[in-house]
Amino acid sequence: MSDKKISTESYKGVRDFFPADMAKERHIFNSWSKTAESFGFERYDASILEPAELYRSKGAENEELVNEQTYTFTDRGDREVTLRPEMTPTVARMIAAKRRELTFPVRWYSIPNLFRYERPQRGRLREHWQLNCDLFGPTDYTADVEIITLAYQVLIDFGATPEMFTILINDRREMSELFASLGIVDPEIVGQITRLTDRKKKISAEEYQTSLMKIINNEAPVTQILQLIENEAASNSVLNALHSLGIYNAKIDRTIARGFDYYTGMVFEIVDTDPTNNRSMIGGGRYDDLTSLFGGEPISGVGFGIGDVTMNDFLTTHKLWPQESLKTGPSLMLIPAEADDHLSAQKIAAQFRSRGIKTAVDIGSKKLGKKIADAAENKVGFVIVVGQNEIDNGNFELKNLAIESSQNGSIEELVTYLLANS
Amino acid sequence: MSDKKISTESYKGVRDFFPADMAKERHIFNSWSKTAESFGFERYDASILEPAELYRSKGAENEELVNEQTYTFTDRGDREVTLRPEMTPTVARMIAAKRRELTFPVRWYSIPNLFRYERPQRGRLREHWQLNCDLFGPTDYTADVEIITLAYQVLIDFGATPEMFTILINDRREMSELFASLGIVDPEIVGQITRLTDRKKKISAEEYQTSLMKIINNEAPVTQILQLIENEAASNSVLNALHSLGIYNAKIDRTIARGFDYYTGMVFEIVDTDPTNNRSMIGGGRYDDLTSLFGGEPISGVGFGIGDVTMNDFLTTHKLWPQESLKTGPSLMLIPAEADDHLSAQKIAAQFRSRGIKTAVDIGSKKLGKKIADAAENKVGFVIVVGQNEIDNGNFELKNLAIESSQNGSIEELVTYLLANS
Repeated sequence: MSDKKISTESYKGVRDFFPADMAKERHIFNSWSKTAESFGFERYDASILEPAELYRSKGAENEELVNEQTYTFTDRGDREVTLRPEMTPTVARMIAAKRRELTFPVRWYSIPNLFRYERPQRGRLREHWQLNCDLFGPTDYTADVEIITLAYQVLIDFGATPEMFTILINDRREMSELFASLGIVDPEIVGQITRLTDRKKKISAEEYQTSLMKIINNEAPVTQILQLIENEAASNSVLNALHSLGIYNAKIDRTIARGFDYYTGMVFEIVDTDPTNNRSMIGGGRYDDLTSLFGGEPISGVGFGIGDVTMNDFLTTHKLWPQESLKTGPSLMLIPAEADDHLSAQKIAAQFRSRGIKTAVDIGSKKLGKKIADAAENKVGFVIVVGQNEIDNGNFELKNLAIESSQNGSIEELVTYLLANS
Repeated sequence: MSDKKISTESYKGVRDFFPADMAKERHIFNSWSKTAESFGFERYDASILEPAELYRSKGAENEELVNEQTYTFTDRGDREVTLRPEMTPTVARMIAAKRRELTFPVRWYSIPNLFRYERPQRGRLREHWQLNCDLFGPTDYTADVEIITLAYQVLIDFGATPEMFTILINDRREMSELFASLGIVDPEIVGQITRLTDRKKKISAEEYQTSLMKIINNEAPVTQILQLIENEAASNSVLNALHSLGIYNAKIDRTIARGFDYYTGMVFEIVDTDPTNNRSMIGGGRYDDLTSLFGGEPISGVGFGIGDVTMNDFLTTHKLWPQESLKTGPSLMLIPAEADDHLSAQKIAAQFRSRGIKTAVDIGSKKLGKKIADAAENKVGFVIVVGQNEIDNGNFELKNLAIESSQNGSIEELVTYLLANS
């Protein structure tokens, strides 16, 4: 071994999950799973290692993305490997592989970790986890409605109320029709307007208008575009359906475009209404022919994603963390009175564990008082001191550390008490 | 987009988890978690990305291991990164980072995915998941006993019986004492004998004896080493304690050495007794000063690991897969009679979901009979056809697909029925 001491820090831009952090992650993942499954979605997963061609094949723009924003390396078999930066290409690959065996509509969800090689900043780490839900097959607008309803329910199931967030909906086909009605049909111009409009909330009204003018070079449509984009009363069948389902914190927002090229119809975002956490949390939409890279009949779908960091910030902002499900460690600590009692304590522990009580033995070498204090500090609910006396007469004292009371009895009596009181 | 079709296969040596595969993985992970937590172990995790120095720093042997058997690459910030091949260095780093804040004994578990760059073969993929349990702090032999008891219970909690596996125990300190009693004290010679003995089950008795002779070059100790290694009656305090805890499928096996250099005391393996799956499933042991790389006071511990592929093979070999917990997808499928009924079906679905019933809507364009057949094929328990008639009179027919019976009633009556019957 070398004498050089190495750092205890994790790799740059990723997180260590100590038990308290892990409890929060698990709370998020469990709630996500439960909501997705209540809609009949089935969980899948894949390796984080994917052939780089899965991301490169979409053209020059993606070539740059793969080279500069992903972890891509060549393995010793000369294969180019990428740590997956998003789940959509993976799920498209899997759906394409099983298309003949699957019964559509297919409802799948996953909670993958995703990697991006970028400058770490708030909410944008190099590794994060993301809930991905997709509904494959139907092109009916009620599939779009279901996906938005599921995204809504994901937040509601954490205890959120509708005032805490807003659902912003748009539709790329509707936008094309609106532009066409103004005589703008060149896909290149439409694309430029869309990308500019996507940034509208981040730039000044003046900058937006000037840039729009540069693209179109004609004053009349600019005014009309501004009117249609700012039309607060805009509606469509998806929005009407959401209202009929009792979801009222939704509206049409013509600036919503979503970054990914593969969206072709409805697109949506969910934003936090709290000004201190004012940002997009959930994004998704409808895409056609997701599996085109792999050949065969087109398969369309609709889906969304939400990240763990974003979810964590939302729960913190709105004080939605539960206390109980974040508890880690044992409910009961058995403390041997002497080192000789360690094995006896292990035997007794087995009896409590077999009845479903999370039980640990403090086999450290500290003094009894310190061990009890440690248990209290670590939020262990109950302790039992196990000594020769207690073992001989089969009568144990169960101390409730939270309320500083205690209870005497046989192991069986204390099991019954604990099952009723914890 | 390019016209070139790309493969739907995953990267070499890793797995896709389609819903049926994922259900098996989750069954394994859930059972592992439950058992570890019943012993008061707390879950942690970290990123798969670790600084390469975490693995390199242990000397030349490790240098080779890192270069040839791990995924290691240089990021654009010129940092060497390794995809973690095992969890022990990571947990040592995390324990070292928080040593001042932690209350020992610390009981931690994790279910990380680990990466090895090697030729894919049965049970040795490039990516696998592993349950890792470690107890840090106490050097008492009862900590060793607890870890073996936990490993035993991990298998029992899947429904295994003690005849299905054997616990083989050894102790590196005891082996050193036994060798010393034969006059063999040179650590280099002891190391050579240990590595040879570790391979004893894989080579012939003759080859073992010849190789031993080459190392020692003295006939008398060779005979004595053979005797002590084959001593079926060997015992120690750990084995006696296991017996007193009712664990009888354990014995001392002097050939058990375990590959890792960091083990310093008790070492153990659990092997499947079925001749068709005859191999080591669980391995672990005691180590001292795991955190030496990071400086500070030594921290010792005892732990073990078991992989998901091995676990999967054990459950298959002994027919221990449950049927019920492997079911994925909805319990109830609502089938709209006409496309116009899609939205009504979504509204009704919300009512079932809010009562905890996993409910999906078949918004596909197939015929009614085909949709019902699809639901049956996908093992959906119940279907309700939602048409204008049913909506108008508020009376729905719930078909039980498993037993081909049905039940009529209002949504509320059917909710009550389903909660009582599924």
